[in-house]
Amino acid sequence: MPSETISLEGHIMDSGTLVRVLDEIVAAGADFEMLDLKIGMRADNASVARIKISSGSESDLVALIERLGQHGVNTETIVDATLAIADLDGAFPPGFYSTTNLDTQVRVDGRWIEVRRPEMDCGVVVEDDGARTVPMADVRSGMQVVMSGFGIRVTPPQRPDGVDGSFSFMSSDVSSEKPKALLVEQVAAQMRAVKKSAQRILWVAGPAVVHTGSAPDLGALIRAGYVDALFAGNGVAAHDIESNMFGTSLGVSLTLGVAADHGHEHHIRAINEIRRHGSFAAAIEAGVFNAGIVYELVTRGADYIFGGSVRDDGPLPEVVTDMTEVQRQLRDIIWGRDGQAPVGFCIVVGTMLHGIATGNCLPAHVPLVCVDINQATVTKLMDRGSFQSIGIITDVGLFIRELAEKLAPEELRPVREDAQERIAGSNTVL
Amino acid sequence: MPSETISLEGHIMDSGTLVRVLDEIVAAGADFEMLDLKIGMRADNASVARIKISSGSESDLVALIERLGQHGVNTETIVDATLAIADLDGAFPPGFYSTTNLDTQVRVDGRWIEVRRPEMDCGVVVEDDGARTVPMADVRSGMQVVMSGFGIRVTPPQRPDGVDGSFSFMSSDVSSEKPKALLVEQVAAQMRAVKKSAQRILWVAGPAVVHTGSAPDLGALIRAGYVDALFAGNGVAAHDIESNMFGTSLGVSLTLGVAADHGHEHHIRAINEIRRHGSFAAAIEAGVFNAGIVYELVTRGADYIFGGSVRDDGPLPEVVTDMTEVQRQLRDIIWGRDGQAPVGFCIVVGTMLHGIATGNCLPAHVPLVCVDINQATVTKLMDRGSFQSIGIITDVGLFIRELAEKLAPEELRPVREDAQERIAGSNTVL
Amino acid sequence: MPSETISLEGHIMDSGTLVRVLDEIVAAGADFEMLDLKIGMRADNASVARIKISSGSESDLVALIERLGQHGVNTETIVDATLAIADLDGAFPPGFYSTTNLDTQVRVDGRWIEVRRPEMDCGVVVEDDGARTVPMADVRSGMQVVMSGFGIRVTPPQRPDGVDGSFSFMSSDVSSEKPKALLVEQVAAQMRAVKKSAQRILWVAGPAVVHTGSAPDLGALIRAGYVDALFAGNGVAAHDIESNMFGTSLGVSLTLGVAADHGHEHHIRAINEIRRHGSFAAAIEAGVFNAGIVYELVTRGADYIFGGSVRDDGPLPEVVTDMTEVQRQLRDIIWGRDGQAPVGFCIVVGTMLHGIATGNCLPAHVPLVCVDINQATVTKLMDRGSFQSIGIITDVGLFIRELAEKLAPEELRPVREDAQERIAGSNTVL
Amino acid sequence: MPSETISLEGHIMDSGTLVRVLDEIVAAGADFEMLDLKIGMRADNASVARIKISSGSESDLVALIERLGQHGVNTETIVDATLAIADLDGAFPPGFYSTTNLDTQVRVDGRWIEVRRPEMDCGVVVEDDGARTVPMADVRSGMQVVMSGFGIRVTPPQRPDGVDGSFSFMSSDVSSEKPKALLVEQVAAQMRAVKKSAQRILWVAGPAVVHTGSAPDLGALIRAGYVDALFAGNGVAAHDIESNMFGTSLGVSLTLGVAADHGHEHHIRAINEIRRHGSFAAAIEAGVFNAGIVYELVTRGADYIFGGSVRDDGPLPEVVTDMTEVQRQLRDIIWGRDGQAPVGFCIVVGTMLHGIATGNCLPAHVPLVCVDINQATVTKLMDRGSFQSIGIITDVGLFIRELAEKLAPEELRPVREDAQERIAGSNTVL
Repeated sequence: MPSETISLEGHIMDSGTLVRVLDEIVAAGADFEMLDLKIGMRADNASVARIKISSGSESDLVALIERLGQHGVNTETIVDATLAIADLDGAFPPGFYSTTNLDTQVRVDGRWIEVRRPEMDCGVVVEDDGARTVPMADVRSGMQVVMSGFGIRVTPPQRPDGVDGSFSFMSSDVSSEKPKALLVEQVAAQMRAVKKSAQRILWVAGPAVVHTGSAPDLGALIRAGYVDALFAGNGVAAHDIESNMFGTSLGVSLTLGVAADHGHEHHIRAINEIRRHGSFAAAIEAGVFNAGIVYELVTRGADYIFGGSVRDDGPLPEVVTDMTEVQRQLRDIIWGRDGQAPVGFCIVVGTMLHGIATGNCLPAHVPLVCVDINQATVTKLMDRGSFQSIGIITDVGLFIRELAEKLAPEELRPVREDAQERIAGSNTVL
Repeated sequence: MPSETISLEGHIMDSGTLVRVLDEIVAAGADFEMLDLKIGMRADNASVARIKISSGSESDLVALIERLGQHGVNTETIVDATLAIADLDGAFPPGFYSTTNLDTQVRVDGRWIEVRRPEMDCGVVVEDDGARTVPMADVRSGMQVVMSGFGIRVTPPQRPDGVDGSFSFMSSDVSSEKPKALLVEQVAAQMRAVKKSAQRILWVAGPAVVHTGSAPDLGALIRAGYVDALFAGNGVAAHDIESNMFGTSLGVSLTLGVAADHGHEHHIRAINEIRRHGSFAAAIEAGVFNAGIVYELVTRGADYIFGGSVRDDGPLPEVVTDMTEVQRQLRDIIWGRDGQAPVGFCIVVGTMLHGIATGNCLPAHVPLVCVDINQATVTKLMDRGSFQSIGIITDVGLFIRELAEKLAPEELRPVREDAQERIAGSNTVL
Repeated sequence: MPSETISLEGHIMDSGTLVRVLDEIVAAGADFEMLDLKIGMRADNASVARIKISSGSESDLVALIERLGQHGVNTETIVDATLAIADLDGAFPPGFYSTTNLDTQVRVDGRWIEVRRPEMDCGVVVEDDGARTVPMADVRSGMQVVMSGFGIRVTPPQRPDGVDGSFSFMSSDVSSEKPKALLVEQVAAQMRAVKKSAQRILWVAGPAVVHTGSAPDLGALIRAGYVDALFAGNGVAAHDIESNMFGTSLGVSLTLGVAADHGHEHHIRAINEIRRHGSFAAAIEAGVFNAGIVYELVTRGADYIFGGSVRDDGPLPEVVTDMTEVQRQLRDIIWGRDGQAPVGFCIVVGTMLHGIATGNCLPAHVPLVCVDINQATVTKLMDRGSFQSIGIITDVGLFIRELAEKLAPEELRPVREDAQERIAGSNTVL
Repeated sequence: MPSETISLEGHIMDSGTLVRVLDEIVAAGADFEMLDLKIGMRADNASVARIKISSGSESDLVALIERLGQHGVNTETIVDATLAIADLDGAFPPGFYSTTNLDTQVRVDGRWIEVRRPEMDCGVVVEDDGARTVPMADVRSGMQVVMSGFGIRVTPPQRPDGVDGSFSFMSSDVSSEKPKALLVEQVAAQMRAVKKSAQRILWVAGPAVVHTGSAPDLGALIRAGYVDALFAGNGVAAHDIESNMFGTSLGVSLTLGVAADHGHEHHIRAINEIRRHGSFAAAIEAGVFNAGIVYELVTRGADYIFGGSVRDDGPLPEVVTDMTEVQRQLRDIIWGRDGQAPVGFCIVVGTMLHGIATGNCLPAHVPLVCVDINQATVTKLMDRGSFQSIGIITDVGLFIRELAEKLAPEELRPVREDAQERIAGSNTVL
């Protein structure tokens, strides 16, 4: 098997460099043997490592060695960088070395020379007086271009805080620029796995679920068994019932998309009506509403807790208005009551308040996915100790819709047809 | 036909109150006759209007009159507010008057009395010493509650700037809290109508289209004829081609959702390869890529212009790097070249820079829909004079996916199956 | 006095056009006489108005008439547009007519001709075959350019919903692109006016006040008498006390800006300590903390209410955990207890939850300013009926700092010097 | 010196645990000796470490050992956890152990027992049947509470990706919840240091600088020598000149805060006027404007480049419209022309486009601070390879104002007085 010995020196331990080098080797499927490792035995000593790497093929080994060059390793076999002559103006030869913004050296005629003007996404050109980066548009036919492979070395920043200083793209914690359909797919896969393991799924939802029109989709997920428990506020229940009594959410028609005449009264009339009946079950029994999130929860016997807040109207009869009591009930839901399995997966959709409340009570070993259109919501949740959170920055309405398509297509079909009909009956345009 | 005469007084003209009263009457389907209208003939005179309203039924008329009460009108028939006795603790009788936060008067025993503590979403209780708002939770059985109907009057704020001062919910220009599937439906309906009228549809897109994984969906829309022209930047083309050459966008795998090893080089290698071929068409001919947005545009002969920007790598061969020239070509696309129909609908997805550029050149009579996950993008577009813009705050990726489902389901089927297969083949979990 | 008679026709009433024309006239300081006004007496009739306008000078009148052209008015004196010959390539003659994106006509040789390719921020050039917009860069010396003044007419969109369809910039409800120091100045002026009128100022604050380091500034404002009452949550009090006991907020050092070692325990230890003393006053008495928001409120005898929420740790002793009770106390603060004056101005800083709760209880006649770094917070507040809200999109920390500089410079001096000293003592750099 | 020997086992290398343990020891100022370190010589072997720690005092050592417990280390000296009896209902004894959300064990009677219901910010109570977390509100007098110190051990998540799995608050890359005045102070300190080292400072600015009213502050910083070079777009120059010719930015009055009548024409008239003069210098010479950013740059001889974009009006005479040329000039500014020192510090304020463009060209060793009100801007910059960026989420206007107060108070005094006067002269209120 082709092999090569590399060495590293410096604060490779506390800067995390050694860890990253081992990671790269393992990720490449190569074998390694630690020939020598001297760790600075006191805080101010530098460390030294020598590692022998073996890989299945010569080309894999070369590719791996090149990557390790990004972490500043030296190879015992010292060879010059490969150069190729540019054959065109304005483009590099295929296989050119693509730069990072780190300080870089290339080995030419047995000497390491500094690359001038380090800049990302360029090539390196070697000339009589040295080496420099060249942007693609400035390549001229005949230039000597450094190719990928041996003989290139960068100086990674030695950050004593262990923060990854290697060059990369898209390494932020949360970003809206991710493939969304795939994220839906991955959440669906996790939910299926949790159900298979007989653990429970906890949903934590904000009123945006209803405002964005995805309550029927969440209803389908409840019917399909993917919502074992729901934690939400008065608003979710109130607007859900409003939408089933009046066709509006916060007064906005869910089939026309515009504010209904005097629709601002709808939620307060809905709350009043439920209060007159004394409980969700009594109101359902009396036929006040016959669909939606609350309806499905109650009729399927799912767990739920609606926790009050200072901005509530009403509130609805089953809303718990004492905060200490809400937390007690939430903990019981998480750990299971009367022999129930504990929660094994938690998804927070469109709420910061209830999401942080849940994060506060949830053990770190329960995966927590937070879906919100606002990046700051996810950041805050993670900054309050729920470091296991995975943030998905997207539209809550369309996300739940797609998730229901994946997990509960059968339950969804009648919902979709019904919605289609109602929308077709309207003639409002944007 | 039941009728009633109302009167208004004050700065009803410049505060817009009269306009709103007429709007309410027309919206209610009622008839009106302007009995008298004196407009202050000089800027400092108040105006007076008397209007006779007729409606099909007594109950419709009462409901309308109640609404007009929100604008401060007086009725000639003066009757007291209807009172009902609360039959329960903690809830109002059905049909109770639901308050706004405006100063309010109710007519009791022939006298208008002020409602103390005006506050929204409450009821009004009449007691010996006057009237006051009562929150739902504080209702006690036996209280005298004011019911909807005559005998209630609010004082609308007289804002001389004509800004609507009437009480309402959800009146902001742009909000993420809207029913999303419906908005997709409405955009689809408009696109179908524009195609039917033989006008053209202009898409303006940012790289988020590719990063969020919706390039195949946009491709399906191109094939189905819903993209007559595209205006975008170097990044859209580069990442689209990257994703078809390497399966990544900005280095993030579109089937795994994680950063590919050294994926940050992919876009620069893709650009280099296209530059080596000299044009999109030549690269397609040579088999460099065979799917995606650019591929569909070129092979379908759709119009496109990729305008450069200061952050571009490369750029790609057909990117126009002179800004003045980009604007010239954009205007030609808008108004049509060589007998083409002009653009009749414009949709901006995930880009502020190119969106504002387009808004600058577009006449106000062309509908402009701006889809972005960031509210500030839409606000800025509208604040630069494109007041006709309609903002949709949502995830660009899921939006285009849903739109393609609506408009191009046939084109989409093979895409979906293919994606499903590739994702199933991966085993990365969140 | 020079005068001119104009006429308008169409849906000038319900589209709001007439109102806007009168507004323009008044804003220009001109006089007007309504010569004739026929309002469509039924909903489907168009209206007609003739107005005589008089102004102090001929040039003012001409400028006003030109502006009115933006609303589609016709003048009885019909004159051609003034043309000037472009004297340079690439620039218009001074005084050129700057276009909007609305459909536009210019009068040439006694005929109104359509301007081709309407586009904003261009000029209009008249050629043999008609008129068209020309971007500045495309001006060529010798072109005939339309000048500002008579003979230009646009077709405003007739939007039956009364939405302002006239061309403008920066008309959105809320935007971060506003002059910030000026907004601080204006809020300061309002607070001074409210104090002078002997009404009270209610602050509603989120924990960002403490995290951003502006608690000492808010403390100075309390001492200077600009905070009659505070409504906040457990977090504000907890982090305020944490910062005075441990120098951190949410564990982040306020003098170093980095997370303190195990700082995440600080707030919980602070809460525990206060609970051990039973009340803020007892803890202050015992010397647990001697500065900050809570300290100033308690020692100055200001009104306050800390309302609990589901995410609270502890909570602190004086936090009201029942939501219905919180609302009752909030209403009492707003309207005044025991002969107190009512609240005359309310400022919400860095909180959506408590801001919406306050908006729910506040009458519309009390000015409500909402300061937040997140545009969505302000939009939501306005969309929940608090239409009187004025949103300021800015950094809460720097905003309060600047406000304290304006209103309480004397109180602030020792605070600033102290902070300077502590920061200087640290040597952490960014 | 008191000492203690600890051991760790498992994937301590690739999970980064060992690195973090060494960090904690060093951060605590303790000494360590690596007694034994066996690194799994192949990828699938676990590693083992034994470390002797010595510290100045017994109490410091105990505190350090407790912290190391958070990383799952074992101590050779095995002692039970200290227990204390709760003396009050509803509060813990001072010195109680405050929990994380990680799985936790406490040592009682020589046995490690699992703590049930792991949850953050609670205490641990030991009862006959085991140990469990207890929220503060549920503490009852007489309970046995675990105290900080030895005998507590958590199981840190072993994340093979090296992501820090230890419990913490406020660890996100960027957050708006940071002490703002302090961040200003730190940026000021860095700028002073860079000037002292004779390197240059590059500012990259978006038009928000002008819209938010901080152009005079930036002007003061130019005069004081803190702006060696500026990279911006046409908009910054256009609105800066607009504000000095007309008192508005994008048509909004900078002294009144409201849209000026027909202010939307101002920027286009400003651009036209400068184009008529052919250059900034010629226009200044002719007295067209005599203050502002452009004025200071030109008259002080600072470096600048205004790069065009597709949304530009005009553009202004010195704007470079070819994108490839803009990048060339930007690189020259970064590395210095004709013997200039290179850029040693870069600050990006209120622009994503020009910020990413600069990040693309800047070497990683130049510190890059990005100030924006929008978190997504900073995230995007970092996700495009500029990993060295430090993001500050704040209001650009108030940030520059405060920075100018720190760095250029002398230059600022006349500016402030002048502004005060103009604002005082206005009587518009919010």
